[in-house]
Amino acid sequence: MITILNNSQTSKKTFLRNIIFMIGDGMGVSYTSAYRYMKNQDPFEQVKRTSFDPYLVGQQMTYPNDPFLNITDSAAAATALATGVKTYNGAISVNRELKKLRTILEAAKENGKLTGIIATSEITHATPAAFGSHNTDRNNMNEIANSYFDERMNGKHKIDLLLGGGEEFFVRKDRDLSKEFMNDGYSYITNRSELLKNKNHKLLGLFAKREIPKMIDRPKNIPSLEEMAHTAIQCLNQHSNGFFLFIEGSQIDWGGHNHDIVSVMSEITDFEKAFNCAINFARTDEHTLVIATADHSTGGFTIGANGHYYWNSETIGAFKRTPGYLANELLLGANLNDILLKYTDCLFTSDEVKNIEEAIQTYKPEKIENAFKTIIDKRTNTIWTTDGHTGEDVPIYAYGPYKENFAGLLDNTDIAKCLFEIIERKQVILAH
Amino acid sequence: MITILNNSQTSKKTFLRNIIFMIGDGMGVSYTSAYRYMKNQDPFEQVKRTSFDPYLVGQQMTYPNDPFLNITDSAAAATALATGVKTYNGAISVNRELKKLRTILEAAKENGKLTGIIATSEITHATPAAFGSHNTDRNNMNEIANSYFDERMNGKHKIDLLLGGGEEFFVRKDRDLSKEFMNDGYSYITNRSELLKNKNHKLLGLFAKREIPKMIDRPKNIPSLEEMAHTAIQCLNQHSNGFFLFIEGSQIDWGGHNHDIVSVMSEITDFEKAFNCAINFARTDEHTLVIATADHSTGGFTIGANGHYYWNSETIGAFKRTPGYLANELLLGANLNDILLKYTDCLFTSDEVKNIEEAIQTYKPEKIENAFKTIIDKRTNTIWTTDGHTGEDVPIYAYGPYKENFAGLLDNTDIAKCLFEIIERKQVILAH
Repeated sequence: MITILNNSQTSKKTFLRNIIFMIGDGMGVSYTSAYRYMKNQDPFEQVKRTSFDPYLVGQQMTYPNDPFLNITDSAAAATALATGVKTYNGAISVNRELKKLRTILEAAKENGKLTGIIATSEITHATPAAFGSHNTDRNNMNEIANSYFDERMNGKHKIDLLLGGGEEFFVRKDRDLSKEFMNDGYSYITNRSELLKNKNHKLLGLFAKREIPKMIDRPKNIPSLEEMAHTAIQCLNQHSNGFFLFIEGSQIDWGGHNHDIVSVMSEITDFEKAFNCAINFARTDEHTLVIATADHSTGGFTIGANGHYYWNSETIGAFKRTPGYLANELLLGANLNDILLKYTDCLFTSDEVKNIEEAIQTYKPEKIENAFKTIIDKRTNTIWTTDGHTGEDVPIYAYGPYKENFAGLLDNTDIAKCLFEIIERKQVILAH
Repeated sequence: MITILNNSQTSKKTFLRNIIFMIGDGMGVSYTSAYRYMKNQDPFEQVKRTSFDPYLVGQQMTYPNDPFLNITDSAAAATALATGVKTYNGAISVNRELKKLRTILEAAKENGKLTGIIATSEITHATPAAFGSHNTDRNNMNEIANSYFDERMNGKHKIDLLLGGGEEFFVRKDRDLSKEFMNDGYSYITNRSELLKNKNHKLLGLFAKREIPKMIDRPKNIPSLEEMAHTAIQCLNQHSNGFFLFIEGSQIDWGGHNHDIVSVMSEITDFEKAFNCAINFARTDEHTLVIATADHSTGGFTIGANGHYYWNSETIGAFKRTPGYLANELLLGANLNDILLKYTDCLFTSDEVKNIEEAIQTYKPEKIENAFKTIIDKRTNTIWTTDGHTGEDVPIYAYGPYKENFAGLLDNTDIAKCLFEIIERKQVILAH
């Protein structure tokens, strides 16, 4: 049983105006714990905490309701978190009978709030899509982009602000959604300086054809997740009814799928900075609820491998670019020694260098990338069990009015159910 | 910052008399989540919860303070949980300077409480030892057994009740501690029927030479962890000052080290029943705080493997004995078909049977056991990354007065610090 406490019962005696809902895709307990290890590279008595740690309130169960699978994908998990209904893997806010499910973003819009979605993946990718769209298949990213424009509520657009990657799903031969959005009063931006200057809360920002480059590989003309979050909050916070903003650190999960611990740590850093931005706003504003969680964990990453009781994150911190970035530079003909000097703080053994050189001779980017990842995993005692997801419970972090409702062990659907009730200001008891 | 709330500020308006502190050794988030999957073998919308789930309040960090290692062993973790001080791996409630550290069991005894320790390992094993003993090395189990008798507080024994395995460390050629305890008024028991009849709160119960057999392999004359917990609570609950009882589900961890998911589930079931016993007592008593947590996670077990999005626990439930038990029976000459019919509900493929038969031909128990474990892991999509421990945060469960103090993200040392303050009824603020 979860009792939805009304505002007067919560610790903050303020009313709720804004909701910022954040998902670190794939950011399970091994990831949040490893990220803290990164901040504590020496033996220690007192640990340095991450920005998430002070806000831990509980854990949630991530199971889908799929006829054949019991470990969730991002689509089913995001549907549960956005609609309160478990569904099959691949579903974008439709149930197992393929009926559209109302999302908390839609409820927010119905209740007069401004709305936004932000992701470092294509903004049409499964997780953001489940908040702002409905589709029987996560792969229909053109349709999802169309629906962001076409699906209306009371004749009006339901998403005011969209920031992320995925330009190729909006600017197409058959249809240029950027122009259609602009015709309806939206600003359309494609780089960091335009983002930082923007004042229009009707905003479409697409900063890459597909996904946004990972934080440590990112060119200066592409904004960070923190900068997108900051602009979004500034633009959406101009309305007495408040706003609902969804923010995803999309590529934590991708680092996990790719067994690339450097990318994972890069993307958690990007997400942590955006989380700090949200928390700082909420602390000043006092009328904002911030929820951050994961949709599942990824890759079967464990802290420690093969009997070793030491996870040595030093090598991860010594990489200034991802293994994939270094592989691409080397494929383009860069000198290995130059690359190692420029982009790492490691002293490599002759065997390690030899392994990288052999990989370069194959001219296969994944072989070169794997050579780096193997070195990093071996040095750090990092290990992986799957290129898919894993089923363990994931952490929930909360701050602001109503945060008490997200404490303890919840189902992923409970989070949406609570948010519907909060948005609609009803006081009810949810059985589960 | 953790504010230690006094009784009047807690949700239960009752004073605290008893503390039951439970550790599921190695029972990390993958384990508690997998155990819930075991209870939900069909696809589902609404999940059946475990007995632990309603009591989740937070997570704790498990790092040791070791000069060379940053993933804890059970000794350093239990020392942190029992004394509030991080130490080196292998230490039994001594610090890095080898000085003895006061334990919460000792604080409870100083404050007039009866005390008890229960484990399914040798009762001299690292985790229970850190609550009732001090030693520079967890392997000194004779010394630890001696100290249970020899270490006094105000001239009296500090541990009133000890139940578990490890008879060979008490009844030795050089010293028979069972007789020494009996001379001091303790009852000494060695089987289930004696346990169930016992009324003496001065009690030494040793039910195996070393560890107690795993729950699903356990002969009828050896008590369950639940029965030990029940007897302990009945015997210790006779004193106005209350009691401190430590209970360990010791072999969840051993199942993890051994990459044996059948044993893991067997031992979590044993621990869950003991947890229910503690909770039921606390719910009736209203003056009892129950804390349950893990010391670390083990084995790098992940729910899902090799890209599969389905963890199929059916095969685990189909085993009525552990793989190690079946291996021993087969080594003693039992017929394979008879064993499979008697002890499993599986239909085995001809390839699976052939693999077991080939293993039997080696006459090596670990080969036969591994043949079963390989079948189970493959069928279930279970996988492991280490024969040691892993470093991710572990869950905290709490019920009763003061439970609020254990919510959120704690350090393992915070749990002991809170318990010291609660036992000593001081109201302070702990910085961390």
